[in-house]
Amino acid sequence: MINTLYLPELREMLLEHRAAELAEFCIAVHAGVTADFMEGLEPSEVWQVLKHAEPTRRCEIFRFLDPETQIAILEDEDRSEIAELIDTMVPDDRVDMLAELDEDVTNEILALVSQEERRNILRLREYPEDTAGSVMTTDVAKLDEALTVSEALTELGRQASELETIYYLYVVDETDHLRGVVSAKQLVKSIVQPNRTLGDLMEEDIVKVDALDDQEKVAQIVAKYDLLAIPVVNTQNRMLGIITHDDIIDVFIEEATEDVQRIGAVNPLNESYLKTSLLTLSWKRGMWLTILFIAALLTAFALEHYEDWISKYTWLVMFIPLVISAGGNSGGQSSTLIISSMARGEIVLSDWFKIIKREIAMGLILGSLLGGLGYVAGYFIAPSPTLALIIPITVLLVIMCGTLAGSMLPLFFRRLGLDPAMMSNSFVAGIVDILGILIYINVAQFAYRILESSN
Amino acid sequence: MINTLYLPELREMLLEHRAAELAEFCIAVHAGVTADFMEGLEPSEVWQVLKHAEPTRRCEIFRFLDPETQIAILEDEDRSEIAELIDTMVPDDRVDMLAELDEDVTNEILALVSQEERRNILRLREYPEDTAGSVMTTDVAKLDEALTVSEALTELGRQASELETIYYLYVVDETDHLRGVVSAKQLVKSIVQPNRTLGDLMEEDIVKVDALDDQEKVAQIVAKYDLLAIPVVNTQNRMLGIITHDDIIDVFIEEATEDVQRIGAVNPLNESYLKTSLLTLSWKRGMWLTILFIAALLTAFALEHYEDWISKYTWLVMFIPLVISAGGNSGGQSSTLIISSMARGEIVLSDWFKIIKREIAMGLILGSLLGGLGYVAGYFIAPSPTLALIIPITVLLVIMCGTLAGSMLPLFFRRLGLDPAMMSNSFVAGIVDILGILIYINVAQFAYRILESSN
Repeated sequence: MINTLYLPELREMLLEHRAAELAEFCIAVHAGVTADFMEGLEPSEVWQVLKHAEPTRRCEIFRFLDPETQIAILEDEDRSEIAELIDTMVPDDRVDMLAELDEDVTNEILALVSQEERRNILRLREYPEDTAGSVMTTDVAKLDEALTVSEALTELGRQASELETIYYLYVVDETDHLRGVVSAKQLVKSIVQPNRTLGDLMEEDIVKVDALDDQEKVAQIVAKYDLLAIPVVNTQNRMLGIITHDDIIDVFIEEATEDVQRIGAVNPLNESYLKTSLLTLSWKRGMWLTILFIAALLTAFALEHYEDWISKYTWLVMFIPLVISAGGNSGGQSSTLIISSMARGEIVLSDWFKIIKREIAMGLILGSLLGGLGYVAGYFIAPSPTLALIIPITVLLVIMCGTLAGSMLPLFFRRLGLDPAMMSNSFVAGIVDILGILIYINVAQFAYRILESSN
Repeated sequence: MINTLYLPELREMLLEHRAAELAEFCIAVHAGVTADFMEGLEPSEVWQVLKHAEPTRRCEIFRFLDPETQIAILEDEDRSEIAELIDTMVPDDRVDMLAELDEDVTNEILALVSQEERRNILRLREYPEDTAGSVMTTDVAKLDEALTVSEALTELGRQASELETIYYLYVVDETDHLRGVVSAKQLVKSIVQPNRTLGDLMEEDIVKVDALDDQEKVAQIVAKYDLLAIPVVNTQNRMLGIITHDDIIDVFIEEATEDVQRIGAVNPLNESYLKTSLLTLSWKRGMWLTILFIAALLTAFALEHYEDWISKYTWLVMFIPLVISAGGNSGGQSSTLIISSMARGEIVLSDWFKIIKREIAMGLILGSLLGGLGYVAGYFIAPSPTLALIIPITVLLVIMCGTLAGSMLPLFFRRLGLDPAMMSNSFVAGIVDILGILIYINVAQFAYRILESSN
C-alpha cells in the first residue's frame, strides 16, 4: 500500500502552500494509509502536512507513523504544538511515546500540557511495565445507571470524538465503582424502548482485571471471552480504565515474539531485528551463548576425564555428535511444546504428572525409533555387532533424558515463579549434552566390562 | 473462575426440573462464565441446562464450551434440536464445528438446517484452510447509502441480534459491491444530524482483503490499522463477509504457535499438547527427529573418514561437543530472529544484504568472544599453547558459519515460496554440525602440518 509516487506531489503542495489540498489529503483515506503515503518524507515535512489536519485527525495519523518519525517530531517541533498533540492523544499511547523521549524534552512538553492531562500522564506512568495498568487507556464511557437508552445515546454521541472506543458503556456509581456494563450493541438493540434505563440493561457480572495483573493474563482472558475491551479496576473495584482490542493484539504479538526469542536463546529484543543496535544484539545473544558455551566446556572436561579410555576405542568418538544432537533435539521439542502450551494457558503446573507420563512414552517411542536407526549405523562402524548395541541403548536413554528434562525444566521454572521460556531449548540442550556424554561413556564402559568378563 | 461448587446445585435443579432457576442461570453472567460453571457436567447434562436458554443465548454459551463437549452434544443430541442450534450459530464458527464431526452426522444435521443457512454453510466450506474466506463470517450489516442516520440506527437495532458485530456498517450497491464504510462511532456521533445519509458519512477508501488472501497477512493488516473488523471481497469487489477482531486474535495465536513449534522442530499440532494423541505426537516429532538424526549420522561417517588421524590426537575429541554446540546455538539464534521478524513483516526478502552484513558482524563479535573463552580451555587441555589456537580459530569460523546459515536459510526458503519456519533451528543446527566437524578437522590438520613443517 506504500506509494512513493505521492511524495513529490506532497512536497510540491507544501512548497506552494496548497492548504486545501493538504487538508483533503489528510482526511481522504484511513489514517493508517495516510501515514503510509508519507513514508519517505522528512519528519519536519510530515509535521508540516499534519498541521493541515484538525487536531483529532492529526493525532490519529500521527499514531500510525513509524516510531522514528514520531520521536523526531516530538523532540524537534515547536513544544507548544507538541503539547497540544499530546493533549489530544490517547492516554496509553502518549505515555508509551513520552517514555521514548529524552527526559528533558518530556519535562518541557509536560509543562505545557493541560493540568488535567498532565496528571493523567503522571498517574499512568506509575504502572510497572507489562501490567494491565501500563496498557490501559483512561478515555472510557462511564455513565450513570439512571440514564435512559435515548439519553445514553445522546451522551455517547457527545463524548464519541474523545473516546477511543464506544463499544462498551460502563455503569459506575458516584465514586467510580464499577457497577455494570452495557454493550453498544445492546443499546442499539434497545432503541425501540428509549425509556429503559442503563441499570435495567446492564450486565452486572463483569469480566474485569486488576491494574497490577500481568498483561499476558489479561490478553488470555480477552481472547477467551472474545471481548472488545476489558475494564481495569483497583482493589476497591474502582474503575481506572479499559484495555482495548488493538492493545490486546499488540500484547499477543509482543509476548509471542518474546517467547520465540527466548526459545531460540536470545534475550527478548525490545525493537525489531533490523533496528536493534549491534551492541545490544551482541549482548542479548552473547550472554546466552556464553552460558551455553560454558556448559559445553564442562562436556570437554568430562570427556577429558575419560581420555585414556576413549583413545583405546576411537570408534566411539564417531557417535558423539549423534548422541548429543539426539538428546538436544528431543529435549528441545519437549521444551518447545511445554513452553508454548503454558503461554497459551493450555497446561498448568498441576498437569505435571500427565506430562511426565506422556514424555516417558514419547521418549520410549522416539528413542526406540532412532535407536533402531542408530544400530544400523553402529553395525557398520563398531568393531562387532554386539558392541554396536551401545549406540541404540545410549540413544534410547539420552532421548528419554531429553524428553524428561525438556518437559520438566520449564515446569520447574514456572514453579519457582520464573518465566518458563527462560529455560530455553538451548539451555535444555546444554544440560542434556553433559548428561548424554556421561550416559554414553558409562553404557560403553559397562558393555566392554561385560564383554571382557564373558571372554 | 471455575467453580465446581455449582455442579451439585445444577444437577439438583435438573433433577427437580426447576426451569425458572435454570433459565436464570443461563443469563445471569457472561456466556463464557456460564460455560465455565458447567465444566464437569456430562455433555447431555449441559444440553439439558442449555435447553432452558432462549436460542440466541443458548448458542452464545455453546460457543464457549470446550470442544469435546461441543462435539459430544452435536453428535449425540436430537438432530432437529441440533439443526436449530446450527441455524442460529455464527457462520464461521459452525463451519469449523461441523468440520470436526463425523461426515454422516454432518449430513444428517445439514438436511435439517434451513435451506438458506445450508447454502451458506456449503459456500463457506469451499474456502481453503488458512484463507480469509475460511475465517470470515457472513453476518454483517450491509446498508444502502441513501439511508439517513436515524433510519440506519433503527435498521441496525432491528438486525443487531442476528449480527456478530455492529461496529462497522458497510455500504453496498444493489449487487453487493462494497462502496464504503461507516463506523458505529461515526453514526452515534452524528445522532445530532439525524438526516445526514450514510453516503455522506461513509469513508470510501476501505482497507479490505480478498477471500483467498492468507489469514496471516489479513491479521497483520488488521493489527497494523487497529481495525475491529475487516471486509472480505471477491475479485469483483463484491462484499462476501467480514473477519472480526476475535477471529484475528485466534489467527495470531494459531500462527505464533505454529512458528514456535516449527522453530522447535515439531510439525505444528492442530490441537493442544495434552489433547494430541501419542501416535500423532510421535509422527510430528519423529519425522523431524529422524531427518536430524540422519544428518547427525552423516557427521559420524565424516568423522570415521578421519578415524586414524583422530586416534593420534585424542585431545581434539574433547572439543567436538563444544564446536558443535557453538555452531548450533549461534545458528539457532540467527534463524529464530529472522523467522520471527519475517512472520511479523518486519523483514522482507530485499533486506537480505543488510541481514548478511549484520550477521557477519555478529559472527565476528560472538566468534571472537567465545573463541577467547575457548582458547582458555584449550590452553589447559591441548598439548601446547600453539596447538590450543586450533580451538578459537575453529570456534570463530563455526560461529560465522552458524550465523550465516541461520540467517540465510530461512530467507532462501521464503524465496522458494516455502514457509521459512520450516527451516527450523534444529535443521540449521544439523547442517552447521557437519560443516563444524569438517572445519574443525581441517583447521586442526592445517595447524599440525604447519607445526611439522616448521620443526
